[in-house]
Amino acid sequence: MNEVSRCLEGVRVVDLSQFEAGPSCTEVLAWLGADVVKVETPRGGDPGRSTGAKPGQDGLWFALLNANKRSMTVNLKSEAGIDLIKRMISNANVFIENFAPGTIERLGLGYEVLRQINPKIIYAQIKGFGTGSPYESFLAFDSIGQATGGSMSITGERGAPPVRPGPTVADSGSGMLMAASIMGALYRQQATGVGARLELAMQDAVMQYLRTAFSEHGNTGRAAQRAGAKSPSVVNVPSNIYPCSPGGSSDYIYVYASRKAPDQWHRLLKAMGKADLIGDPLYETAQARVKNESLVDSLISDWTRQRDKYEAMRILGEAGVPVGALFDTMELENDESFQKRGIIQTIEHPTLGALKVLAWPVRFDGRPPAVQAAPTLGQHTEEVLRQWLNMSQSDIEKMKRDGVM
Amino acid sequence: MNEVSRCLEGVRVVDLSQFEAGPSCTEVLAWLGADVVKVETPRGGDPGRSTGAKPGQDGLWFALLNANKRSMTVNLKSEAGIDLIKRMISNANVFIENFAPGTIERLGLGYEVLRQINPKIIYAQIKGFGTGSPYESFLAFDSIGQATGGSMSITGERGAPPVRPGPTVADSGSGMLMAASIMGALYRQQATGVGARLELAMQDAVMQYLRTAFSEHGNTGRAAQRAGAKSPSVVNVPSNIYPCSPGGSSDYIYVYASRKAPDQWHRLLKAMGKADLIGDPLYETAQARVKNESLVDSLISDWTRQRDKYEAMRILGEAGVPVGALFDTMELENDESFQKRGIIQTIEHPTLGALKVLAWPVRFDGRPPAVQAAPTLGQHTEEVLRQWLNMSQSDIEKMKRDGVM
Repeated sequence: MNEVSRCLEGVRVVDLSQFEAGPSCTEVLAWLGADVVKVETPRGGDPGRSTGAKPGQDGLWFALLNANKRSMTVNLKSEAGIDLIKRMISNANVFIENFAPGTIERLGLGYEVLRQINPKIIYAQIKGFGTGSPYESFLAFDSIGQATGGSMSITGERGAPPVRPGPTVADSGSGMLMAASIMGALYRQQATGVGARLELAMQDAVMQYLRTAFSEHGNTGRAAQRAGAKSPSVVNVPSNIYPCSPGGSSDYIYVYASRKAPDQWHRLLKAMGKADLIGDPLYETAQARVKNESLVDSLISDWTRQRDKYEAMRILGEAGVPVGALFDTMELENDESFQKRGIIQTIEHPTLGALKVLAWPVRFDGRPPAVQAAPTLGQHTEEVLRQWLNMSQSDIEKMKRDGVM
Repeated sequence: MNEVSRCLEGVRVVDLSQFEAGPSCTEVLAWLGADVVKVETPRGGDPGRSTGAKPGQDGLWFALLNANKRSMTVNLKSEAGIDLIKRMISNANVFIENFAPGTIERLGLGYEVLRQINPKIIYAQIKGFGTGSPYESFLAFDSIGQATGGSMSITGERGAPPVRPGPTVADSGSGMLMAASIMGALYRQQATGVGARLELAMQDAVMQYLRTAFSEHGNTGRAAQRAGAKSPSVVNVPSNIYPCSPGGSSDYIYVYASRKAPDQWHRLLKAMGKADLIGDPLYETAQARVKNESLVDSLISDWTRQRDKYEAMRILGEAGVPVGALFDTMELENDESFQKRGIIQTIEHPTLGALKVLAWPVRFDGRPPAVQAAPTLGQHTEEVLRQWLNMSQSDIEKMKRDGVM
């Protein structure tokens, strides 16, 4: 790991989280230098380990969400296991979990219990629905959070059924909000020694990412609508996708010319060899372009169809037009620019071999933090017991014999 | 503001950001207690102020992204204005900007300049594309970030053109990653006095939110595909939307029964009055349900069509089935549960009057941070000069006369 990014050096995180919302949060803490100990059940561990995986292996899904962490196994159904967690808490800065509602309290690791052990602890929980919500006890996955948080209602073609936004806005989206909140609480913990109880619902988190759609209420008095490739909240022409050759399922470019910057429309016309249309009242004002949207769309797509998306993006982008080719996930993974810049890194995974993985995309003094492979199940159990609790080898062996790990 | 959330008390942020990616980031810092001073041009300020706004007013769009901040006007085209920013930097913890590429350096406020003034400064920048990318100099908006970051390629119906995810994953999504990174750097700044240069590209940020789609490459060897309301990366039946009465554009529920938890399918059957189908080989295993997806879909939609989404969600949710009604933005805003829990708060805005606004959804010791109205343009100019720079009233008057503010 490059030293520059070790911001959270010395911060200890007891991580009981699973699947994506919790692990995506603690992975940020780990990337920024915290010692994140992922506590897992000895029987299979985080159920996310098997998502998309070959039998007996961890999957890439898990590897992408659990880099830079350590793993220890603890049997949470044994009294000695729960006691072990409590001992770790007394040495920790942060505790986090995202089990189904009520589970952590049944395990005897609720907030009131852990706060007694360590009043400085930052106790973080992510659930599907908020405390006090009528749906408080309901189970949730990313799709449920996206349906109930409004993101699906504004995604899809107008007049057609909604679709699910591809990004996991409820899962990783929640993880990012909680990571920020934990670091805010850590700043205060460092300054004042005060702990915090942090709670986040996936439904509530999703709304944070679509506030611009909510802003439409003030103007229209009604819910934001689905708008295909256009924005659900801003009327601006052009602001759409246009087809490129050779016509594959992601062969499009997005072209935008801001109604607030008349220059951008002129640059677009020039770049397409249509400078003669500068000043044409059919297109000249933002209002005219809205009125004549289908003409604008034809004008642009006649040009885009004649080139591939890379060329189209290059020509328009260099001309100062906001433009973006629509890249698919494989095109992104194969774009060497990301590797050069450290946004995608190749790591050696203990069982999966060489893996291309996405790093934390924020560069610290020029480089994203270095990615370390996600741990195998229980890989660091003994190491953590020695380092965090000063346990002797004989004590560790005894715990093993007692089935604690 | 409730005291419990003032984690970043004493942290000073010089905020030159505009529109959404930057302001969504600094709003998090402000909600968590930092003193965020939004520096704006005297002529109209942040161009986001007029987005969706009536002439001469700030819009709700701006109000939602700039709560809890202070605003001061500074003429960045005057030498005295730039000098003023530099004096503020010497007293600040964080600097942030998201102008078009190259602008901040042309203004004379590049990283190397400000680092000389204050080596502890955390200098944060958000751009469309990363330093070193072939598109480094290109302009970007949210849609461009979503097109080039892959999120559009996996959103939409299979076989149909892509659509834009409704959440602003490139704008607010970048803001959240940068907010987390800034707080990580603040933790280190507090401990060691070391500053940081932080850079984030919207394209790179978007990829962070779709890592589960990238994980498909390991299994399929090809790009993740659009999958309508289903997940682009996990094959699981049922995991889809189902129509409810009365058949409006958002009258659906999402129903999920995990292939990893056979109980959830049984609970669903029981709740729909179809307990007789438990054990039926047509549906019993995860594989069978994938094979007979259209039968599963008919079975569920025959039931959902007979009730509205609220009732359907309540019945299935109480039965322990992961389920979520598809709420639109107006339904969410009108759901009083959010007001009771502080997730939506009503504030008094100086020019817009009473506003319902979305708060930071993470609860700190039971409550989200209290929202304070976004500032009017230049509302706090004199106050900040007095508090940050100990300026006298006569000095302030002189600067005003000189056109600095």
